[in-house]
Amino acid sequence: MAPQFVRANVRDMAGYTPGEQPGPGERVVKLNTNENPFPPSPKVMRAIREIDEESLRRYPSPDAADFRHAAAKLLGLSPDMILAGNGSDDLLTIATRTFIPPGGTLAYPDPTYSLYSVLANLEEAKVATVPWGPDYALPIEALLATKANAIYLANPNAPTGTFVSPMKVSELATVFPGLVLVDEAYADFADDNCIGLVKKHRNVIVTRTMSKGYSLAGMRFGYAIAQPDVIAEMMKVKDSYNCDAISIVAATAAIEDQEYYRQKWEYVRRERQKMSSELTQLGWDVLDSHGNFILARVPSGKGKETYLGLKKAGILVRFFDKPGLNDKIRITIGTAQQNNALIAGVKDLAADGEKPDKVEKAEKPEKPERAEKPEKPEPVVAK
Amino acid sequence: MAPQFVRANVRDMAGYTPGEQPGPGERVVKLNTNENPFPPSPKVMRAIREIDEESLRRYPSPDAADFRHAAAKLLGLSPDMILAGNGSDDLLTIATRTFIPPGGTLAYPDPTYSLYSVLANLEEAKVATVPWGPDYALPIEALLATKANAIYLANPNAPTGTFVSPMKVSELATVFPGLVLVDEAYADFADDNCIGLVKKHRNVIVTRTMSKGYSLAGMRFGYAIAQPDVIAEMMKVKDSYNCDAISIVAATAAIEDQEYYRQKWEYVRRERQKMSSELTQLGWDVLDSHGNFILARVPSGKGKETYLGLKKAGILVRFFDKPGLNDKIRITIGTAQQNNALIAGVKDLAADGEKPDKVEKAEKPEKPERAEKPEKPEPVVAK
Repeated sequence: MAPQFVRANVRDMAGYTPGEQPGPGERVVKLNTNENPFPPSPKVMRAIREIDEESLRRYPSPDAADFRHAAAKLLGLSPDMILAGNGSDDLLTIATRTFIPPGGTLAYPDPTYSLYSVLANLEEAKVATVPWGPDYALPIEALLATKANAIYLANPNAPTGTFVSPMKVSELATVFPGLVLVDEAYADFADDNCIGLVKKHRNVIVTRTMSKGYSLAGMRFGYAIAQPDVIAEMMKVKDSYNCDAISIVAATAAIEDQEYYRQKWEYVRRERQKMSSELTQLGWDVLDSHGNFILARVPSGKGKETYLGLKKAGILVRFFDKPGLNDKIRITIGTAQQNNALIAGVKDLAADGEKPDKVEKAEKPEKPERAEKPEKPEPVVAK
Repeated sequence: MAPQFVRANVRDMAGYTPGEQPGPGERVVKLNTNENPFPPSPKVMRAIREIDEESLRRYPSPDAADFRHAAAKLLGLSPDMILAGNGSDDLLTIATRTFIPPGGTLAYPDPTYSLYSVLANLEEAKVATVPWGPDYALPIEALLATKANAIYLANPNAPTGTFVSPMKVSELATVFPGLVLVDEAYADFADDNCIGLVKKHRNVIVTRTMSKGYSLAGMRFGYAIAQPDVIAEMMKVKDSYNCDAISIVAATAAIEDQEYYRQKWEYVRRERQKMSSELTQLGWDVLDSHGNFILARVPSGKGKETYLGLKKAGILVRFFDKPGLNDKIRITIGTAQQNNALIAGVKDLAADGEKPDKVEKAEKPEKPERAEKPEKPEPVVAK
């Protein structure tokens, strides 16, 4: 039993179970955690190798000043509109602690990134989930009706890959008096984004990560974009030195090398298109994705069997054991070779007729990741 | 004015102002932020240079598994008694969120690390400060009387450098029903520590940082030591990937190179002894320090003038503009050369008679640091 000096809301949460990750020697086609299939830019690797002892011995820049300037330059904003974080999870944590009081409410369209409910729970705030509209349209009226302190919107959404137009988000931000946080973890793979809304709407924050688009999941770096007085409030809440010296150097080198990364994003989008077509031809029902992954209904409707069958063939994809998702699997877009292996695996499974004796039992959950944390339950509503 | 959708407790906090840090070309004797004067171990630098692209592309170990094992081995504990954090500030944040509810109370002997009050404020918890006993003895009865949820104890304390024996901490943990967190940021420079108490007391957590003893302030890495079921609760609260792949590799290489670092700690202790003697001979009243810094009363009782006079001479030390501290300055122990420069500077100032015309006005505050955050005010008591 948990010690009595632990907060009740924490005690009531399920324990954290890190999921499996293939070992260094294991040969798998890993399409389950939405990492970029390409390595970071060579300029990033060079910048890391050039780190000197003095940068480690001393405290880093408290506001990641070099990165702020580089990001501001790229986006045509002022540096005081940028807040750097230890991954975009850090920024989501900071935002929740800055804007949502105990007993307050966080609202979001569901399904989405499951971290949101965990963060609300930690603040002893309530969660109001609102189903997506038809074709994953933004349910503006229903969100308004929650009278929440804040609305979090993953856009492109995870795990669906669907996208809400900036115009619709602007509509919401105009009528909603609280905070609208747009989590753009996957924006590098989309056609549009909401950064343009920040200047117009004081209550809009956009968060970005370097984990997906910039191939730096291991580095933990993200940033938020908002009006200066909003950033200033979040600055009070963050840890004083929340980004380390190497991650600042690496993230700065990465965001300055747009040429390298744009080619990779283009590649992923082409492969996304190709894989969507091929799966559709095989009878899968593929959602129109704007991320570096696709969510698709398997023809049999048995998502788990397909997931396990592919796993047995050495191909890791992602399965969500939830109503509305358990007939689907989510596939990260990899290299052409990886994607071809996936298509071949799917064809083999179909040829096998997805026999029950091929399905293993007692599988461990996959590694938790940026987009979903299945190991943590929905939060307890505090009041 | 801050936006209305910001939480009231955050709005009421003072803005964060990063303090000054000398530029790369500026030549100063920097004895103001308690960094280790020596570079990190060569093995750390080698480990960083050997980082491969794949470690950056993929998510890192969610629990910093390699570090946990290395730290557990060194300390003779099991890995599930270790929690890694993004600096020990991250661990203090996690602990506060795990153990102190809104409306609860955090108690600590004062003066100490000013982050504690900020963390309580962010949780909308009350702060109960208790003056240190005579000769900085642990005020056990007064701490008990606060009926707090948690007591935080910096040991060695900052900015005094004073030390409370593990026996006294054990006494407190026996009679106090809440959490006793011992912040051992400076323990590498002390004769003793409280890690041995963790096995005996379920309600004791010890936190450590790699910033001071291991010359890795720029890397952001710390760890907490507690019983497994206490660590498990904190695991639920931390960000999923709170430590990045490079910091895990660097911190693991560092903690495994005890031989290198032990020599540096010995050096710092010898220099601490030497500087304490020399300042005492010059009429300063030096507190017995167990950290890598000393707090000493200047003969004139005018701490600020001495701080400014030294600064003009290119020597940065730390001044706290608070009752009980404003007659003193805090000096980080540097290399023998730096320490000699400090002594020479002090002698020059004394010879000059600390003339008022030597004192500059409108100084900016020093860089905020691990040990104190003067830019953040005492917290507003929520209830």
